[in-house]
Amino acid sequence: MTIDDLQARFAALCVTAGLDLREGQELIVSAPIEAQSFVGHVAGAAYRAGAPLVTCLYEDPSLIRARFDHGADEALDCAPGWLSDGVVKAYEGGAARLFVYGPYPDLLTGVAPERIGRMHAAMAAASAAEGAFTADLRVNWCAIPFVTQSWARIVYPSMPIAEATDKLWNDVFDVVRVKSADPIAAWRDHLAVLETRCQGLQALDLSALHFVGGGTDLRVGLAEGHQWVGGRSRAANGALPVCNFPTEEVFTCPHRDQVEGRLAASRPIALGGIVIDGLVVTFRNGVAEHVEAREGREMLEGLLSGDKGARRLGEVGLVPCNSPVARKEVLFYNTLLDENAANHIAFGQSYSACIEAGRDRNIAGANTSALHIDCMIGHDAMDVDGVLKSGERRAIMRAGDFVLD
Amino acid sequence: MTIDDLQARFAALCVTAGLDLREGQELIVSAPIEAQSFVGHVAGAAYRAGAPLVTCLYEDPSLIRARFDHGADEALDCAPGWLSDGVVKAYEGGAARLFVYGPYPDLLTGVAPERIGRMHAAMAAASAAEGAFTADLRVNWCAIPFVTQSWARIVYPSMPIAEATDKLWNDVFDVVRVKSADPIAAWRDHLAVLETRCQGLQALDLSALHFVGGGTDLRVGLAEGHQWVGGRSRAANGALPVCNFPTEEVFTCPHRDQVEGRLAASRPIALGGIVIDGLVVTFRNGVAEHVEAREGREMLEGLLSGDKGARRLGEVGLVPCNSPVARKEVLFYNTLLDENAANHIAFGQSYSACIEAGRDRNIAGANTSALHIDCMIGHDAMDVDGVLKSGERRAIMRAGDFVLD
Repeated sequence: MTIDDLQARFAALCVTAGLDLREGQELIVSAPIEAQSFVGHVAGAAYRAGAPLVTCLYEDPSLIRARFDHGADEALDCAPGWLSDGVVKAYEGGAARLFVYGPYPDLLTGVAPERIGRMHAAMAAASAAEGAFTADLRVNWCAIPFVTQSWARIVYPSMPIAEATDKLWNDVFDVVRVKSADPIAAWRDHLAVLETRCQGLQALDLSALHFVGGGTDLRVGLAEGHQWVGGRSRAANGALPVCNFPTEEVFTCPHRDQVEGRLAASRPIALGGIVIDGLVVTFRNGVAEHVEAREGREMLEGLLSGDKGARRLGEVGLVPCNSPVARKEVLFYNTLLDENAANHIAFGQSYSACIEAGRDRNIAGANTSALHIDCMIGHDAMDVDGVLKSGERRAIMRAGDFVLD
Repeated sequence: MTIDDLQARFAALCVTAGLDLREGQELIVSAPIEAQSFVGHVAGAAYRAGAPLVTCLYEDPSLIRARFDHGADEALDCAPGWLSDGVVKAYEGGAARLFVYGPYPDLLTGVAPERIGRMHAAMAAASAAEGAFTADLRVNWCAIPFVTQSWARIVYPSMPIAEATDKLWNDVFDVVRVKSADPIAAWRDHLAVLETRCQGLQALDLSALHFVGGGTDLRVGLAEGHQWVGGRSRAANGALPVCNFPTEEVFTCPHRDQVEGRLAASRPIALGGIVIDGLVVTFRNGVAEHVEAREGREMLEGLLSGDKGARRLGEVGLVPCNSPVARKEVLFYNTLLDENAANHIAFGQSYSACIEAGRDRNIAGANTSALHIDCMIGHDAMDVDGVLKSGERRAIMRAGDFVLD
């Protein structure tokens, strides 16, 4: 099959296994212009599945660059809140959302990180209501990776660009199981494994996780009534989307005041063209007190200063080091893939789905922020213990793999 | 200069002479994806003019086609009202709007006109509030032509596509005066001519216009307190945009009940991929009673059945047959250019700017509709008389040119 054939299969899989699009449901896609032909496949699949309307909000990276090159400095604090308000209206009307993430890591080369941070902060603030809709699963949504030339160039820098793009597409097709004889069945089996894993962790009723290895020695207390989530989630409309596609993780909600110790990131964080590498963070009483990095420290500091919850954790996720993404042994410079290669935590907003229904998020200890940034800490020399409420410990992972299942 | 250089000049002219963008004003652009590099020039010019944010709502023609090919029939009545509501919010916040019109005349080949009409009707209804904002000049806005390959192919069908595209771009550059040594000065002079023409017509205080020639014999009564408008208009924020760029017309508001006689279109109407050709319409008491056409009659009938005002006139415009557009002696299949080659009327919505401030639009006789479709009737064998309130007649145009100035 050609890359285009496989993209068409991938698009159809996103609409079914990814979004679980309901008949009669409108679909909003966001995608870079470079993804136009892929979006065409998505629209075809969605219309065939009964969507009355597919609207794509195309993103033009050169317009972002134009802002920094030609715009006034104070203009960076301006964001299109009106567009986000429109999307909220669509959500209220029942629309689903597909985020086609095509990274442009070299887009903002040479721009001061402080200026980039300001733009991101303004965008996060202007789209808080929109972000809460998806974070709280009030609609079914799904985020998927799209291979841009800009992205392929940093993952495979020594290859000619056409070859690098094809190679990275093939990586993506492998990890989303599109090349399986029956991709739908492959996803059903994989999702069953994640579900069993969640049930096992849930049954332990842990008070904390303790990560040790590779420079990390971090105890992450868990929120009261935390729920282990992985694979499919149930949206308010009854749909069962896989919100991050691919997904290999099971994750839950940390307690915002109960994180102690030292985190050493095992992979870089790539954020809108900026890379944060060699990150080391020290936590006390849940707060990231001290932040060091070989690269991108100022950018991260800017983001962590966005609001009160930005310096605390909103997610902790477990991924075996032999996941299909990890097995690629490639650094993808893309959270959507890299977080599926390794254990990780996230700064900022927590997911409501990770707190028992009916419980007050705030009393439970769940964190609130406009930010959500994943940070990979896992690797094949990491052990993870679960701390029971009795204080007793259970081995969850050894040398990067699950020993619980 | 290359096509790209001239596009950059054109983009800058759109932002200044076209939009009269104010410092600190946000800009919303709508454009086909094919116009990406042109939109980049617009964004650069707007940011340099002090815009805090430029957002482009890119249109993907293949997604429109996908709807007809793969969507359910009843889904055609669905439209993204949420997006239009978002734009209204931006307008309320002071944003200006640039419409980059790139036609795709062959996009919907083979689709039943009734289905296309339904989609247009649903879109018009869902965006009524947005359309009223620009029609009433509550913001400064500007609509400009963009040369798509699809459009170039029907204007110059015998040329190789690259040559056709370049030729059509050069036509556009000529009629928007971008190749002048000083385009800004050229526009200042041209706008002064239009202003003088409006003043002359206004001073006559006409009760009607009478068009005779080329199969047309049409008396168009004018609304009470009608205003002649041409070239620049004053928006509510004080800006002086040229809303249609290029513009060669002076126009005013017909009385919705006082149109009598026969109209024979002198050029085809091109609407979202469908062409209405050989149109002949008979009016009585302002209503288009009988509609004939060699091509596209059903499509037009569908549109004229959209609401009560759709069968009545909302605009009458005068253009000398020696305008730069007319001199090209090319049928552009694009209202934005063709209406600047010929006298024309429009079915549907009238412009508030064409009614004296403070007057009740409805009592004055101005028409209201979600529709606005221009129809060219002028050519070089047409005479136009003005009918004074005394019943006396004045020659306005003879053999297609003004005799009033």
